[in-house]
Amino acid sequence: MIEPAYVAVDWGTSSFRLWLVDRTGDVLAERRSGEGMLAAAKAGFPAVLRSHLAAVEAPDHLPVLVCGMAGARTGWVEAGYVDTPAPLSAVLKQAVRVPSEVRDVRILPGIAQRDAGAPDVMRGEETQLLGALGVDAAGEALVCMPGTHSKWVCVKNGIVERFATFMTGELFSAISRETILSLAVAGADDAEDVASFKAAVKAAYEAPAFAANLLFGARSRQLLFGGAPAAARETMSGTLIGIEVAAGLSGSVPQAGVKLIASGRLAMLYRLAFDTLSVAVQPVDADEAVRHGLSMAAAAIWTK
Amino acid sequence: MIEPAYVAVDWGTSSFRLWLVDRTGDVLAERRSGEGMLAAAKAGFPAVLRSHLAAVEAPDHLPVLVCGMAGARTGWVEAGYVDTPAPLSAVLKQAVRVPSEVRDVRILPGIAQRDAGAPDVMRGEETQLLGALGVDAAGEALVCMPGTHSKWVCVKNGIVERFATFMTGELFSAISRETILSLAVAGADDAEDVASFKAAVKAAYEAPAFAANLLFGARSRQLLFGGAPAAARETMSGTLIGIEVAAGLSGSVPQAGVKLIASGRLAMLYRLAFDTLSVAVQPVDADEAVRHGLSMAAAAIWTK
Repeated sequence: MIEPAYVAVDWGTSSFRLWLVDRTGDVLAERRSGEGMLAAAKAGFPAVLRSHLAAVEAPDHLPVLVCGMAGARTGWVEAGYVDTPAPLSAVLKQAVRVPSEVRDVRILPGIAQRDAGAPDVMRGEETQLLGALGVDAAGEALVCMPGTHSKWVCVKNGIVERFATFMTGELFSAISRETILSLAVAGADDAEDVASFKAAVKAAYEAPAFAANLLFGARSRQLLFGGAPAAARETMSGTLIGIEVAAGLSGSVPQAGVKLIASGRLAMLYRLAFDTLSVAVQPVDADEAVRHGLSMAAAAIWTK
Repeated sequence: MIEPAYVAVDWGTSSFRLWLVDRTGDVLAERRSGEGMLAAAKAGFPAVLRSHLAAVEAPDHLPVLVCGMAGARTGWVEAGYVDTPAPLSAVLKQAVRVPSEVRDVRILPGIAQRDAGAPDVMRGEETQLLGALGVDAAGEALVCMPGTHSKWVCVKNGIVERFATFMTGELFSAISRETILSLAVAGADDAEDVASFKAAVKAAYEAPAFAANLLFGARSRQLLFGGAPAAARETMSGTLIGIEVAAGLSGSVPQAGVKLIASGRLAMLYRLAFDTLSVAVQPVDADEAVRHGLSMAAAAIWTK
């Protein structure tokens, strides 16, 4: 019979994922819910965690390793930051134990860039980086991690040198719901419109200053020429991704291209964007990356 | 005793302004309300107009000239568009009479740019242009008209050659209310923070692709270094204006600089932005411009 060795939790702003893992890193059980930091701050972090532990019948002695926004100041227990230049090995060494729990529950720190000209923070992505790159990967990587708050990260010989957050996903959501463009995308079905997406990526990449004009164009185009709501949605999406990629690629890009850590629809869209711009991509599944990162950290903490 | 000659109305998406004007263009009475197109579409355009006409005791025979969103497809009576290249003189010739009214009520058309690569529309701004530039102004002007949907317009010898809309004001509003930045600006007082604004304008102007990163920086800066909500608000405002100005100035800029048609706080912010970038500006008051434009059109229509 396979014994569980630890529990891994990715606790984001709006999502909660838990895996029961054995000594070899294999997943024995999984839970997913919308009880992210925002919901858990109301329901109580201990109660949310315990309900999921009970659901997977986790033994009382089993340790739990958490990454993500649960470690924010507004989360469960503040887990601080490792400052850039941040060795990924330091992330696994600075997990903070939750004092109120009998069970050994630890939260991994985030990474902070305390640069007055380009201040930035991440929480959760450092664990994906750990899983995708390993602790001491030699060489240089340019990593793109799309999402509500996309991260672009330069990692050199296992050290996060610098990074930048782009609020691309959140902008897409706010703009589709709260501006005149909500009229343009109203009733959009799931139809793909690859041509509109690629055209918008290219236009925004080539003239990023025109982003707020390209967005409005999704509405003007409908008024003057008609067109489906899905086309307007893909134009918005392509514009916001195109301008992000223009910034992300504005520094030096390693020979091997961009390491893209993403899952599902975002992985598809960003691959399409990079393809449009003829940029080589090494795809890594984000779900696997965070689980692998938590496994590495758990092994370092509890297997001594 | 001074007799009124006509009524001028600027009927925007969310604002209504009416002036009772004499033969010389002098204002005898004024009304302002929030009964823009959106509110009037519910209350009924005729009822809204009549209540304000009654309030200024406009005689029954007095004609009314309207510009703005009342002429949109979703407005009162669709007033169509003059297509680019659009002579400003054509705008005053193509006013559409409202058929249901006994009184002579006419709505001025907008301007459309039927370019598949850069489709765009304006309604109301064409009347400001008329008022600010005149019908047959010789030479070339680059005009910036800040707002919910800012317009940048190239006018040559009285002809609107091309223009671009930037949804700067609407983005500022949606982003301040509906994203994580709402936390950064919560409780912001009216304190000026000219330094934060100017720094953001400069950063966005120099690296427009980083707009979504510069916006997030308003939050990261607070997390890592503290800082007032007003500073975050000015950073957001400066970033969005900076990227717009970068696009607006990306073509050729006339020797005389940019003609800035704006009023109130927006006029102040954009002048500060242009000043930061050492760009010469010829300021024109937007309220006066639209009134003057309506006067010119009224004279052309009714004084024959």
